[in-house]
Amino acid sequence: MSYQKLVSELKRLHYLNSALDLLGWDEQVNLPKKSAAARASQSSALSDLIHRESIHPQVDDWLNALEQDPNALTTEQQCVVQEARRNFDRAVKLPSAFVARRAEHQSRAYHAWVEARKNDDFVSFAPFLKTQLELAREEAGFFGLDGLQAYDYHIDNHDPGMTASVIGTLFDSLKSEIVPLVKQILSSAVKPNLSMFKGFPIAQQEAFLKRVTASLGFDYDRGRLDVAVHPFCSGNGEDTRLTTRYFVDNPLDSLFSSIHETGHGLYEQGLPLEHLGTGLGTAAGMGVHESQSRIWENQVARSRSFWDYWEPFYREAFPEQLSGVTSEQLYLAVNGVSLNPIRVDSDEVTYNLHIILRFELEKCLFSGELDVVDLPAFWNEKAEKIIGLRPTSDVEGVLQDVHWSSGAFGYFPSYCLGNMLAAQLWYSALDALPGIEIDFSNGDFTRLLSWLREKVHCEGKRCDLMNLTKKVTGKELSSDSLIRYLKERYLPLYQQT
Amino acid sequence: MSYQKLVSELKRLHYLNSALDLLGWDEQVNLPKKSAAARASQSSALSDLIHRESIHPQVDDWLNALEQDPNALTTEQQCVVQEARRNFDRAVKLPSAFVARRAEHQSRAYHAWVEARKNDDFVSFAPFLKTQLELAREEAGFFGLDGLQAYDYHIDNHDPGMTASVIGTLFDSLKSEIVPLVKQILSSAVKPNLSMFKGFPIAQQEAFLKRVTASLGFDYDRGRLDVAVHPFCSGNGEDTRLTTRYFVDNPLDSLFSSIHETGHGLYEQGLPLEHLGTGLGTAAGMGVHESQSRIWENQVARSRSFWDYWEPFYREAFPEQLSGVTSEQLYLAVNGVSLNPIRVDSDEVTYNLHIILRFELEKCLFSGELDVVDLPAFWNEKAEKIIGLRPTSDVEGVLQDVHWSSGAFGYFPSYCLGNMLAAQLWYSALDALPGIEIDFSNGDFTRLLSWLREKVHCEGKRCDLMNLTKKVTGKELSSDSLIRYLKERYLPLYQQT
Repeated sequence: MSYQKLVSELKRLHYLNSALDLLGWDEQVNLPKKSAAARASQSSALSDLIHRESIHPQVDDWLNALEQDPNALTTEQQCVVQEARRNFDRAVKLPSAFVARRAEHQSRAYHAWVEARKNDDFVSFAPFLKTQLELAREEAGFFGLDGLQAYDYHIDNHDPGMTASVIGTLFDSLKSEIVPLVKQILSSAVKPNLSMFKGFPIAQQEAFLKRVTASLGFDYDRGRLDVAVHPFCSGNGEDTRLTTRYFVDNPLDSLFSSIHETGHGLYEQGLPLEHLGTGLGTAAGMGVHESQSRIWENQVARSRSFWDYWEPFYREAFPEQLSGVTSEQLYLAVNGVSLNPIRVDSDEVTYNLHIILRFELEKCLFSGELDVVDLPAFWNEKAEKIIGLRPTSDVEGVLQDVHWSSGAFGYFPSYCLGNMLAAQLWYSALDALPGIEIDFSNGDFTRLLSWLREKVHCEGKRCDLMNLTKKVTGKELSSDSLIRYLKERYLPLYQQT
Repeated sequence: MSYQKLVSELKRLHYLNSALDLLGWDEQVNLPKKSAAARASQSSALSDLIHRESIHPQVDDWLNALEQDPNALTTEQQCVVQEARRNFDRAVKLPSAFVARRAEHQSRAYHAWVEARKNDDFVSFAPFLKTQLELAREEAGFFGLDGLQAYDYHIDNHDPGMTASVIGTLFDSLKSEIVPLVKQILSSAVKPNLSMFKGFPIAQQEAFLKRVTASLGFDYDRGRLDVAVHPFCSGNGEDTRLTTRYFVDNPLDSLFSSIHETGHGLYEQGLPLEHLGTGLGTAAGMGVHESQSRIWENQVARSRSFWDYWEPFYREAFPEQLSGVTSEQLYLAVNGVSLNPIRVDSDEVTYNLHIILRFELEKCLFSGELDVVDLPAFWNEKAEKIIGLRPTSDVEGVLQDVHWSSGAFGYFPSYCLGNMLAAQLWYSALDALPGIEIDFSNGDFTRLLSWLREKVHCEGKRCDLMNLTKKVTGKELSSDSLIRYLKERYLPLYQQT
């Protein structure tokens, strides 16, 4: 009886939270210029109210009753109870006033970031960022955590069970392989030519990528694709909202960011909808989420077999722009590697170095070694060391990402953890699904999606990142598959003939 | 002290309600096809929660304390307290479960209406409409009202103080004048020619009407214009969302519906924003709201002086379509009068007959004389009598309007009350602002907007429709000005020379 009540309450909270999500989506997609303060007040009032609802003592009572006799519960029910307990405990320790303050500041900080990025003006954004960092520290403080433990708290918020120490080990091993790999690729005389990507009308780009993303399995009857400054996926499987942005002279940006967000959307649409709001219908964590976006964006959509199928349609959509371009040139351009100061504009090889940079900076911010005002200089110095490129402005450096403006510390590592898992899943899928790449070259992506649905999506939050990796791939999460994949895909391409 | 607490709580409730409004806006503008059930659950959960918050006993305590010594309050504070009391009493009598049920059904019924209208299938919609009517009766029942009193309750929800009996008297007087006026106009040999309105590209329509609506004073930095099945205005002055729809072969529909919604938007943007959430920052009622949309749509935007200014730009936007059309022909087309089964496609003369039809049907539905299943036949019969035209399908009849699908009974009369007030305000404005029509012919609408801001918008909900009319125009609300205006505008146009 407690269990039914609990689930019903979790679903009610889920619908309230998804209403709050919609405010966030609308803020980035539709909000009029001068309506930001009103939206901040709406979000703050609603998030405060939801927070108060989610810490109702009745929920604690139901959980206590259920926890007294865990053997009376099925494994599935145990998963629901454990996740509910984790969320309840996390919420109950946060005072409502703090939650409201954080939500209100989040909205203001987002708009400050948009302005600051537009004007290359870090100084105007710094106080907002400083407050975000203080709020993040304050939040961890409610759990008695500070310094690097506070950072672990935020990492765990995104990827349960993960710590800065585990990530550090994984990233060090990755860095030691990728830095020389990047050098090797860049030293090749083979250079992608991107000059073909000029004058791609937005209407045709949109039509093409809607066709591609639908073919991958994204259900537009339960989702949308809109335009925002920063591509993202929000909502859930009942109403999944993707965003991208269009550049006439950079069609690969919208194409691959859309496929990336589609990967996130496929995960959401693949979670068991009847369990939405409970641990059984919730993503396992941000790292796993990112593995789903990455596998479609990179392993699939940058593959030879994918382009075998889509190239003719791409040429049909942009006949003049691609006239005189050979298949080889097009495929090399899709897999272009170059140093780029902007993370989201980076290729999948150097991208990992961007994440390692942000991880190292976040560690310094939380440990206290680094102050927000010194961030631009520190960023630029570290970027030169790790990525091999010094930003020429803060728009190319510290102002490029939305995450910190919304207080999402400890989120960046998930991207790289996701890259590792994506590659590990990829090799498992290749083993399990013989001839899958022939499917791709026929425009058929259903076998891979079904496999991911069964192995990953259907699991919900039964396992964390590390355990899910072990369960699906039979191996511990490591950088091995990612390194193997990058070498197998990129070294032949950049081999001088 | 209680007063400050009350206002702060009213503002919090306002932001929660405006979040709920946004769910409604998004539902009509953006919602994916299969996401309707999820949205219904979101709206239901949120509206139930807001309802529970709005009947918190503390609000009652504060109100009681303030009501004990009304002389200690300023007139403004008294207005805030009275409006808060009205809303509290209305909310506290509605059980939360009822409110949730109504919200959930509203969403389902809306989608059923969309489908039914698409398929001209009243039978599929009838059970939803029946439930809406039952919910409306049930709601009035919580206040001990039934039959026509229940109808009065819903009318009062839209226009405080108004009753079916008062409306009946006003409408009877209007009907007796308009029916012969329509006959007179239609018997004229002067006929508007609408054949010019073909092939107006949507992009140019949108650009033109955004320019027009901005010139009227709509602040797009605090608002948007999007596309929906049924044009509407939602949100409030901090974020005002208008919708329209585009037809390549009917550009006047989008133009005038946009100007209509802009009138609503100007009212919202003109309410004192610092008082949002209280009676001082709330519209006086739907009739007054409609007067604001109508005065811009009809008295202003169908006037000769308006077109003196905009005609050249309209021709610039649609040069080929309007080549060979004289100014006289264009102006006559803008003021075309003809019998049309669809209310929203009707001219401003016959429009009033549509409202009278719906008012008489609603009366019969609430009195019990008419059952939902008999509605289509009854509609068609009444339409023939009042409007002079029998619909050839339910899409042309009972399925044409969104209102009943959302349970908005007692709303329709506001449109016609608004028409009366708009005309009455118009003559007051002409008296108060000499030469205002010369302003219009120069594209300057600021003096009229300022006058409406001062006389109507700034008032908030200090007065109800009847009292506001008296205060601003010096006369009781009547059909006299509307009849005068229609005769002055239309008889010369349709005079045979």
